[in-house]
Amino acid sequence: MKRFAVYVTSKEGIFDPAGENSRKALKSLGFSGVTDLAIGKYIELEVEDSNTEEEVAKMCEKLLANPVIEDYKIKEL
Amino acid sequence: MKRFAVYVTSKEGIFDPAGENSRKALKSLGFSGVTDLAIGKYIELEVEDSNTEEEVAKMCEKLLANPVIEDYKIKEL
Repeated sequence: MKRFAVYVTSKEGIFDPAGENSRKALKSLGFSGVTDLAIGKYIELEVEDSNTEEEVAKMCEKLLANPVIEDYKIKEL
Repeated sequence: MKRFAVYVTSKEGIFDPAGENSRKALKSLGFSGVTDLAIGKYIELEVEDSNTEEEVAKMCEKLLANPVIEDYKIKEL
């Protein structure tokens, strides 16, 4: 078995309401030093040994990320 | 400014319906080699230099993660 981690983040310039709301909520809880906060997805996959990183990239393009508004990074664990 | 990454994942034994549904959807798209898939959150924070990793851990405990059902890892970038 192989394990991969996938990090999915909003592309530069795409509004991230969840991140913005969390930053405001942290501020109202007294954490005033947060100047930026972005929320994305962290995905861990376990795949059979025959699967390659290119295969995982195809999974991202087709389902795990939305390539129009999101970037993704893949790392073998 | 300092930057931190936070990885939030479901604790062992907590059901992850989004991950399970994505695994099934990948299978129906022809990606049959995925044996496990877990979806969590990937958060990037930019904070003022006076903020420490302990401060970020407090943000996780209070808002960014649900410590009852989720684990989190913090890494300075």
